Amino acid sequence: MSGRSFIGETRIEALPGDARGFAYGDGLFETMRVHQGVVPWWAAHRARLEAGAARLRLSLPTATTIEGVLAELFDDQGDGVAKLIVTRGGGGRGYAPALDAPPVWRLSRHPFPQAPRAGGLVLRWCETRLAVQPALAGLKHCNRLEQVLARGEWNDPTIEEGLMRSTDGDVVCATAANLFVLHGTRWSTPRIDRCGVAGTCRAWLLSQTGAAEVRMAPAEVETADAVLLCNAVRGILPVARLGERVFAPHPAVAELAQRLAHAHPGFAAGPLL
Amino acid sequence: MSGRSFIGETRIEALPGDARGFAYGDGLFETMRVHQGVVPWWAAHRARLEAGAARLRLSLPTATTIEGVLAELFDDQGDGVAKLIVTRGGGGRGYAPALDAPPVWRLSRHPFPQAPRAGGLVLRWCETRLAVQPALAGLKHCNRLEQVLARGEWNDPTIEEGLMRSTDGDVVCATAANLFVLHGTRWSTPRIDRCGVAGTCRAWLLSQTGAAEVRMAPAEVETADAVLLCNAVRGILPVARLGERVFAPHPAVAELAQRLAHAHPGFAAGPLL
Repeated sequence: MSGRSFIGETRIEALPGDARGFAYGDGLFETMRVHQGVVPWWAAHRARLEAGAARLRLSLPTATTIEGVLAELFDDQGDGVAKLIVTRGGGGRGYAPALDAPPVWRLSRHPFPQAPRAGGLVLRWCETRLAVQPALAGLKHCNRLEQVLARGEWNDPTIEEGLMRSTDGDVVCATAANLFVLHGTRWSTPRIDRCGVAGTCRAWLLSQTGAAEVRMAPAEVETADAVLLCNAVRGILPVARLGERVFAPHPAVAELAQRLAHAHPGFAAGPLL
Repeated sequence: MSGRSFIGETRIEALPGDARGFAYGDGLFETMRVHQGVVPWWAAHRARLEAGAARLRLSLPTATTIEGVLAELFDDQGDGVAKLIVTRGGGGRGYAPALDAPPVWRLSRHPFPQAPRAGGLVLRWCETRLAVQPALAGLKHCNRLEQVLARGEWNDPTIEEGLMRSTDGDVVCATAANLFVLHGTRWSTPRIDRCGVAGTCRAWLLSQTGAAEVRMAPAEVETADAVLLCNAVRGILPVARLGERVFAPHPAVAELAQRLAHAHPGFAAGPLL
C-alpha cells in the first residue's frame, strides 16, 4: 500500500490529529479498479463523488489534482485498486461543518483483492441491518459501522460475502457490493433511496439490463434463477450459494460478464474471467 | 488544542493514513469536562466506553494508560475539555474487522466551549432525522454524519442548538446534548434504544429525577413547563426558547443545576453558574 495525503492542494506527510474524518466519518470515498494505470470508470466515480459532495456540502480537490496523484501512484502503468477518501477540513471540536475549509484527503494504491472462488461466491444472510436514512442513502460516505458489524459476523473463509437487509426487512446489498437477481428474463436490483450505495457497476448494469429497481423481499433472492453481486473493483461476481440455496451457473450472468469485459478491457484482466 | 496519538501503548507522531477511524468512522469517543486536572465523571465515561467497545468488539487502551495521558495533558491542574477517540486498529482495505489489532487512539485537550447565553438556550427543530438503528443506539460512536448535517442546517449564531427527531418522528436529542422536559413535577427524557447517545449527564439526571424514559412526540416538548439540555461538558443547560415557544425560567431546573454543582464542584466553575 502506498498513499498520498493532502489538505486542499498541499501535500501533507500525515493526517492531522483533529481530522473530522477521524472524529465523525465526515467524508466520502471511492474505491476504483485501475487497469494499466487507468481507471476505466473514472467519469462515473467522479460524478458520484461530486453528487455526494453537493449533498454533504463537502469541498473537493479538483479533478485535475486527483488525476495527477493517480498518475503518480500508478506511474508503472500497473493494475490494482485506487482508494480515494475526501473528508471535510477544518478540524476542531463540535459538529458545525466548516464550509470553506479545504478538504483533508488521501489517495492510496492497493493490490487487487483475493480472487473469488471459481464457480461463484458463497454468501450468507447478515443479522446486522441497515438503518433507513434517506439523507445519506446512495452516498459512498465514511459512516460504515453497519458494514463493519455485518462483516464481523463471520470469519469462515469459505463465505465471501453477506447480504444485508434494512431495518424494515428489505434486501439492500452485500456488505461491499450491490445485488442483482434474475427471474426468467427479468433482472431486478434493490432500490437505494432509503439505504445502500449507488454503485458504479450497479449503474452500468442498470443501463445494460434495464433491471427494475424494487423494494426486494428476501424470498425474491432465494427463489431467483440467478444472483450476482457487483462492484467497481471486482466487476460482476456470480453467486453460487446463499446459505442452503444453490444457484447453478447461468448463461445470462456469463453473458453480462463478457459484455463488461468487452466494454471495459480492464475487467477482462481481472480475477474472475 | 494539544493532543497525543497512540497505537496500543505506543505513542505515534501522527495518525496512520490507513486508519479505520478515517475510512469508516470505526470507533468510539468520549468528550469529558476536566476540572483542576480531574475528570469528575471519569468512571461513567470509562464504563460507557467499555460497554461500547464490547458491543463493537473494539480493543481499548488500558484505563491506566488513558489516565496517564490525561494527567500529562492537564499537568497544570487546569480546566478544559478532554476528547478521547478510540478506533479499531488494523488498517487495510475492506470492512472485515481485525479483532486482535491494537487500537489507534488519541486524547486531546481543548478549551471550554463558548458560554451559553444568560437566561437559557435558544433552540430550533432540525430537519435532518436520526435513523433508527438499535445496533448502534446509545453508543458514542464515530459515525456522526447525521449530527454534522443537522448542525449545518443553520448558521444564525443566536441559535445555540437544534432538536433532532428520528425518522419515525420521535424526539431524540439535540445535536450534541440530551433532552429532559418537565410537565408539572414529572420529568421525562427520550428513550435511546433506537437512536441517540446514552449521555453521562443524562444518566446522572435520571438517577436524580427518576425521569421516565419515553418515546417523545414533538408536542411533549412544546407544551412542557420547562426544558433542559445536558451533556458531560456543559452540564445542565436551561432552554429559554424553541422556535416561537418561550420557556420562563423554572425553579426545578435551577435546583438541578445547583444539585449538580454540589455533587461535582467542577460544574460549579463552569460557564453557566
